[in-house]
Amino acid sequence: MPEKLITLVLHGGAGTILRSEMTPEKEQRYTEALERALDLGYGVLENGGSALDAVETTVRELEDCPLFNAGRGSVFTATGGHEMDACIMDGRERQAGAVSLVRNIRNPVSLARLVMEKSGHVFLAGEGAEEFARQQGCMTEPAGYFHDDFRYAQWREVAGSDTVQLDHSASRAGGMAETPLKDHKFGTVGAAALDAQGNLAAATSTGGLTNKRFGRIGDSPVIGAGNFADNSTCAVSCTGSGEYFLRGVVAYDVACLMEHKGWSLAEACREVVHKRLLRLNGDGGLIAVDAQGHFALEFNTEGMYRAVRNSAGLRQVLIYGND
Amino acid sequence: MPEKLITLVLHGGAGTILRSEMTPEKEQRYTEALERALDLGYGVLENGGSALDAVETTVRELEDCPLFNAGRGSVFTATGGHEMDACIMDGRERQAGAVSLVRNIRNPVSLARLVMEKSGHVFLAGEGAEEFARQQGCMTEPAGYFHDDFRYAQWREVAGSDTVQLDHSASRAGGMAETPLKDHKFGTVGAAALDAQGNLAAATSTGGLTNKRFGRIGDSPVIGAGNFADNSTCAVSCTGSGEYFLRGVVAYDVACLMEHKGWSLAEACREVVHKRLLRLNGDGGLIAVDAQGHFALEFNTEGMYRAVRNSAGLRQVLIYGND
Repeated sequence: MPEKLITLVLHGGAGTILRSEMTPEKEQRYTEALERALDLGYGVLENGGSALDAVETTVRELEDCPLFNAGRGSVFTATGGHEMDACIMDGRERQAGAVSLVRNIRNPVSLARLVMEKSGHVFLAGEGAEEFARQQGCMTEPAGYFHDDFRYAQWREVAGSDTVQLDHSASRAGGMAETPLKDHKFGTVGAAALDAQGNLAAATSTGGLTNKRFGRIGDSPVIGAGNFADNSTCAVSCTGSGEYFLRGVVAYDVACLMEHKGWSLAEACREVVHKRLLRLNGDGGLIAVDAQGHFALEFNTEGMYRAVRNSAGLRQVLIYGND
Repeated sequence: MPEKLITLVLHGGAGTILRSEMTPEKEQRYTEALERALDLGYGVLENGGSALDAVETTVRELEDCPLFNAGRGSVFTATGGHEMDACIMDGRERQAGAVSLVRNIRNPVSLARLVMEKSGHVFLAGEGAEEFARQQGCMTEPAGYFHDDFRYAQWREVAGSDTVQLDHSASRAGGMAETPLKDHKFGTVGAAALDAQGNLAAATSTGGLTNKRFGRIGDSPVIGAGNFADNSTCAVSCTGSGEYFLRGVVAYDVACLMEHKGWSLAEACREVVHKRLLRLNGDGGLIAVDAQGHFALEFNTEGMYRAVRNSAGLRQVLIYGND
């Protein structure tokens, strides 16, 4: 094993992402956005910054981009608004912060970090979390900031119905109404990193499901399900059919296979995504990095927006399954 | 190993529960309440009912009792109200339902079950969850139902301050203000069961922290943290300093040690409660049962309200550490 490689991995959602349905212009927009987030986050690591800062920086950039279902690009809820979830975890001592169902927050991942560092708690939700955000001077935006014509059209198609739409995927979600298959991708963004000090961190952020109701919480803000980091094993961020990732405790599942069975990161990620998650009928993917800089970009869907950069000179952005 | 034993275990919270601070009358009230919930839940199993029905029945009874911090006995939030969390999980196919920050719901555990069976989702929170409850005809109660003079006095002591109070424990919760040490017990109730068909289930319910703010969510409604069930390993319900149980993914941690290392339920529970949880500075306990009817009632605090009954004729209610 060579020396540890500083490494950043990220994702912008998984799902039915097919080359045949992509235009060159759209592909370029996604690629550029992923590269920008990748290089920003990697720049933090390269300058000696922490994994925690790197994953926050990466996810903020993805939240600010309307292409991804998180932050600015969040999908519309049943009432025509936006409710966002995020989580961040520091692998040093498993400190963590998470928020759920927050509105008007420009960067939910940064609010999650404030929860971790300033609230004395781990998980805050709804109006209470927004009150905490105001106290902390967290940057907010008016509803118009989150408006996107494409997202609005997505919502109008299903608004007033009981249909929810997994951004953007043909859903196998048990019990949920059949979803329109217009845009088949699970909308979540995330990052995981190993810094020069050997510390791991992971962050995840999402706008949830189009037309979601009832204050639905998916896996993204849940430690162990959508996000996990521990220096002794790995840092993981997930994207997919949230209900299945919750029931599978997917992110922590990877860590446990490494810790208890001595498996490599790659072996653990393959087992979790292609066997254990599928046993529950869950689809989606995850990105992960371990304390040596091994990384995994694993998914059981047609594609996943994903990227990796490390100190061995690797710099790669991928979209489809056969890339 | 003899044949499988149908088994019910329950808890009513852990913490600084000392014989020296208990009056005979108070001890008797707690004992009777625990026995009542135990026998009701066990009766379901004895009549051939499912583990899922048994844990719901048990937790409903504990929610209806003002002695425990869940349902009717829930502590007051910072605004003088009540916000409750609950989770239920079926070990057959890892189906699960959870609710958080719900008000006026008489039995949050039954709402969690409706979420599992009727919503197509797993985790609903706040006003959205309450709207779903109304749609489902879930029984609600006015604020007065949840009023208890003792809880109100507890809250008045800290109301208007930033102090939160873990019901009822000397807290090691990092970053939280020092808590008054009047009533040292973590307020959560839970049950786990093995039925005659060999199925496992677990349920957990709580009123959270006295004077809690910001829509704080603890481990109780989080699958893998405060509650977990899978027929292939175990059913677990936790109680303790929620933030640490979230970071430790405690309930699933027990299951993983059994699955991956082949440990017994007793070994796994001891390791998790006395080593892995303490490494994070977390205090509290858990109850658990496996598919053979082995059970564990493990805690690292001075006491835990707990009980067990099984088809071998065991019927026991315990409170203190040296019982």
